[in-house]
Amino acid sequence: MIKRSFVPAFAPALALVLSASPAAATPVEGQGLAWDIVEGLTTDVGPRLAGTEREAAAREWAAAKLKALGLVNVRIEPFTMRAFIRGDEVARLTAPVPQKLAITALGNSVPTPPGGIEAEMVYFATFDALKAAPAGSLTGRAAFIDHAMRANQDGSGYGPFGNVRRQGPSVASSKGAIATVLRSAGTDRHRNPHTGATNFAAGVTPIPSGAVSNLDADLVARTATRGKPMRIALTLTGHPLENAPSGNVIADLLGRDPSLPLIVIACHLDSWDLGTGAIDDAAGCGIITAAAIEAQRGGKLLRTVRLLWAGSEELGGFGGAAYAKAHANEPHALAMESDTGADRVWRVKFDLSAVNAPLADRVTAALNPLGIVRSPDMPEGGTDVGPIIAANKLAVIDLDQDATRYFALHHTPDDMLEMIDPLQLQQNVDAWVAVLKVVGNEAGPITGSGK
Amino acid sequence: MIKRSFVPAFAPALALVLSASPAAATPVEGQGLAWDIVEGLTTDVGPRLAGTEREAAAREWAAAKLKALGLVNVRIEPFTMRAFIRGDEVARLTAPVPQKLAITALGNSVPTPPGGIEAEMVYFATFDALKAAPAGSLTGRAAFIDHAMRANQDGSGYGPFGNVRRQGPSVASSKGAIATVLRSAGTDRHRNPHTGATNFAAGVTPIPSGAVSNLDADLVARTATRGKPMRIALTLTGHPLENAPSGNVIADLLGRDPSLPLIVIACHLDSWDLGTGAIDDAAGCGIITAAAIEAQRGGKLLRTVRLLWAGSEELGGFGGAAYAKAHANEPHALAMESDTGADRVWRVKFDLSAVNAPLADRVTAALNPLGIVRSPDMPEGGTDVGPIIAANKLAVIDLDQDATRYFALHHTPDDMLEMIDPLQLQQNVDAWVAVLKVVGNEAGPITGSGK
Repeated sequence: MIKRSFVPAFAPALALVLSASPAAATPVEGQGLAWDIVEGLTTDVGPRLAGTEREAAAREWAAAKLKALGLVNVRIEPFTMRAFIRGDEVARLTAPVPQKLAITALGNSVPTPPGGIEAEMVYFATFDALKAAPAGSLTGRAAFIDHAMRANQDGSGYGPFGNVRRQGPSVASSKGAIATVLRSAGTDRHRNPHTGATNFAAGVTPIPSGAVSNLDADLVARTATRGKPMRIALTLTGHPLENAPSGNVIADLLGRDPSLPLIVIACHLDSWDLGTGAIDDAAGCGIITAAAIEAQRGGKLLRTVRLLWAGSEELGGFGGAAYAKAHANEPHALAMESDTGADRVWRVKFDLSAVNAPLADRVTAALNPLGIVRSPDMPEGGTDVGPIIAANKLAVIDLDQDATRYFALHHTPDDMLEMIDPLQLQQNVDAWVAVLKVVGNEAGPITGSGK
Repeated sequence: MIKRSFVPAFAPALALVLSASPAAATPVEGQGLAWDIVEGLTTDVGPRLAGTEREAAAREWAAAKLKALGLVNVRIEPFTMRAFIRGDEVARLTAPVPQKLAITALGNSVPTPPGGIEAEMVYFATFDALKAAPAGSLTGRAAFIDHAMRANQDGSGYGPFGNVRRQGPSVASSKGAIATVLRSAGTDRHRNPHTGATNFAAGVTPIPSGAVSNLDADLVARTATRGKPMRIALTLTGHPLENAPSGNVIADLLGRDPSLPLIVIACHLDSWDLGTGAIDDAAGCGIITAAAIEAQRGGKLLRTVRLLWAGSEELGGFGGAAYAKAHANEPHALAMESDTGADRVWRVKFDLSAVNAPLADRVTAALNPLGIVRSPDMPEGGTDVGPIIAANKLAVIDLDQDATRYFALHHTPDDMLEMIDPLQLQQNVDAWVAVLKVVGNEAGPITGSGK
């Protein structure tokens, strides 16, 4: 009784859903492969929370896929990490009027009792206002931390406003708070809370901590202006889990001269669990893999390209650290990562030595037809390649994606396949192909600036 | 420690939030009053599910507000109805791969056991495909009903695709299904399920029934194409409640000649509980009330205008039925309703007798400067005025709102204040003022076509 035909909700995405037919299990062209990987990870695996059985299933799926695509040395390199197991998450204002709040627990939150807590909730318009609160002033109370993150093309708002999430609960706890609720680090106007990890400083008692959607935060802010005390009933039973099993999936495309230092390109395989991790970061895995295969379609590159589908990025970059520890003694030349969704690449940044200035010029020229401009800023590398870059002072190239939409979807239930624009996804693949063809055929040394 | 100042997420809405200051409790101008009512109902009352204590709180809020605005004969007219009490709502695919599904129970659904059920789920691409399934073929199984609702300006998709929700569970049950899951009657691409009432035909066993978001339905549809059996674990503990207390709030603006048949204008006060009922239908109450007050600002209208803030619209139009029953013997001339959100009025429709053709022309001329065109179609009236129209064969004027966005938000958690465009809300008020000034000063008979 399973019906094979179906009426899709949204025609524009349909052509690509159908073109990425499950019958075509081993596409060997870059065209369509990035979408195929994203569709497979989101549909046939689903959410891939680090340290869970679903992340393990994703590793198996990934290894099988990479082997089927013809990559070599495909292996899973296990490690353990501190996971976060989601539980019940329910919040409501109980005063001055009852209002449900759409909330999600932050990674590294500790649980409330199963029946929850109820407490006065003190509203802080900014993180700075919380920091200025007197010691002990939050004893027995919950803290609400508001802020005003905005969308921008370079995603730079995620630094300061992401810090409200990363550090806010620790600061609230240090002043006596028994729970923290904050405005999500996100830019959408939907009822979607954004999850993400928080961290408690040494010596600070971890407390139950969650984020509400922007619309819920607006409601709290409006209610705060009424001037009557607010109370919150909060149940967040998610909890950390030590020594959970995770792992990286690694695969190589051997170059014509395997003795040359390799190029490592990375994405992360784990995802937050509210959506299915389409833009974060199945898209990155699709982009780098499709590009690596496409770049050698006319013949092998000179250098070996290694794919790192890292595990456990979201909860603290465990996969990138494990990779660096395991592979620091292998010769690496250059590292790149794709982890800002699936919208188009708009600029390129280089960390290359002075002797590689002509190489940077050639990469820039190759990207120019794709509408990509050169930035003089230093690249950031990324969480999955950061440790190997730091350990071996590698050269780095960033292909910066347009982040205008990214933080509307990031870490939310809406991080789903349909959010990906197939044309922009393909522009990413094309950009990576252009870079890999230049750097992958560079016979001379490729080295970082050492900065 | 409550901070009075706050940093809002979205600057465009802020000016209006602040202008609708709670300190200005009794604005007497149309300008800003519609927003003030929507902000008050959504912020200071919240969700107003019919038959619950929150709907009762909304009636008290409404009566106090209408008195403060200077209306007379303000009264609450109680009645009882069959309510729906929301419970736990959790769904996930358990095969072929585990996937969470964002689900909400439909009104009139009956509960699963507290621990839920697990069953094979049969995918139907269309409601017609379900109708064609053999008798008994769904015994012991859950049915998934897909469809393809699209946004359109006249909202006409809500007829046929709303019927999937209204009738689908009853049809599934008649073929043996133990539960129904369907694609929401909605046009958005977010992880928001749309609730709404369903109805089981006489003799059909009610079964637990819920709607998933469009993104979840896409995931189910893609999974169905894989050809492997799907299984669902479903917990929906919401349940009907008989004889719940509800009521209408009624208020009059007396005309210069109270002996003339009155004009009744309606909205509904109850809301679904996932959001705060901003567009559905606090906006309608704001629009009709602000317009009625503004229309008499230069002096009383000739005719009495009655405001009906109806209770219990969502679960079956109980408020409109109760109004007709209580007031059928009073002389009414004309009925109008606002219940399609807060986007602009784009067309007007008339049910007027031939003798009132000049009146229709004058109304049309008054609306023309607001960009509103005349449609030859017959008006629909609306759920809250339908019974009094039918009982007394009233004249009807529809001010049709642009419904392009409406069914993206309707009955979802996103039905929040921020979704309202204040300029379009005010255009609604202006359109209603224009109509009321013409019809409210009509000295001759106003009668319907009798069709």
